[in-house]
Amino acid sequence: MPEKPSILTRRTVARSRLFHVEEMELLFANGARRCFERLVGSGHGAVLIVPMLDPDTVLMIREYAAGTQRYELALPKGLVEPGEDLLDAANREIMEEVGHGAHQLTHLTSFSIAPGYLSHTTHIILAQDLYPERRPGDEPEDIEVVPWRLSDLDSLVGREDCTEARSIAALYLVRDRLKR
Amino acid sequence: MPEKPSILTRRTVARSRLFHVEEMELLFANGARRCFERLVGSGHGAVLIVPMLDPDTVLMIREYAAGTQRYELALPKGLVEPGEDLLDAANREIMEEVGHGAHQLTHLTSFSIAPGYLSHTTHIILAQDLYPERRPGDEPEDIEVVPWRLSDLDSLVGREDCTEARSIAALYLVRDRLKR
Repeated sequence: MPEKPSILTRRTVARSRLFHVEEMELLFANGARRCFERLVGSGHGAVLIVPMLDPDTVLMIREYAAGTQRYELALPKGLVEPGEDLLDAANREIMEEVGHGAHQLTHLTSFSIAPGYLSHTTHIILAQDLYPERRPGDEPEDIEVVPWRLSDLDSLVGREDCTEARSIAALYLVRDRLKR
Repeated sequence: MPEKPSILTRRTVARSRLFHVEEMELLFANGARRCFERLVGSGHGAVLIVPMLDPDTVLMIREYAAGTQRYELALPKGLVEPGEDLLDAANREIMEEVGHGAHQLTHLTSFSIAPGYLSHTTHIILAQDLYPERRPGDEPEDIEVVPWRLSDLDSLVGREDCTEARSIAALYLVRDRLKR
């Protein structure tokens, strides 16, 4: 593993309600200097949950995505609140978004989404042994819950409204894991 | 599919060299109004390439990621230049990053990375029938090329330095596709 570059300077170059852009000047081990901009996340990260209704049925959600300006079919997810345990955050999110809690929650791995310019981390949580429980969320409209069979992942990934890389990676990961 | 919300207002709330943050006020079909912030991308998107040296060997790269401030093992990728064809962009990127071109390039699908707040699209390109050809890139230090066997994807995804969701999703997708 190469030696990490040193950070010579860092400063905030833009800020909005949600986003914080930092500029860093880096000195690489070979002497090269470069300026990079990155988005600094909230620090607590997010959870993305794979809620299994039974060993072959995952609960997806269809929700409006303001970034791409269209409805997206993806796994439930949300930000971890300050001081909140990852598994508690996962259970809260599935109660709010798919109307179920889980007796069994497992942290499988953690993904980055654009490590070149985002500090953001998403923790992938497998939720099993579900029970019905709905908690109110802060969504502007009702979320549609869409059950999908993991044995039919090919046709899901081929859909134009299922494009979110973290959800697709997590679905393959869980399908492989549950097959074993 | 629900009716898309109408965009009542949109304005730029922050801007830096790389990033453009837009605030939008949306009116949902049920009458709910919400303000969202999103990052608006360059408009041309990015390509992420799965370069197959042989039917079981993919060429990964190890590169410093300024967003997460560590070295990351991932697939080669880069921005599409204005007016550039997606497959040409993919071939250029693998010449710069892994020292190979490809006689066969296939656009498999396109991923979003955080559709809730990023407009960004990444086109996934399968590169086969490789030939050695290196072009100079703009990287601050030499990129390490790491061949990996698709039949050993489990141990790759279990590594702490292989976390990038688009790469992981693309590797599973190609493994499944080449198995058929």
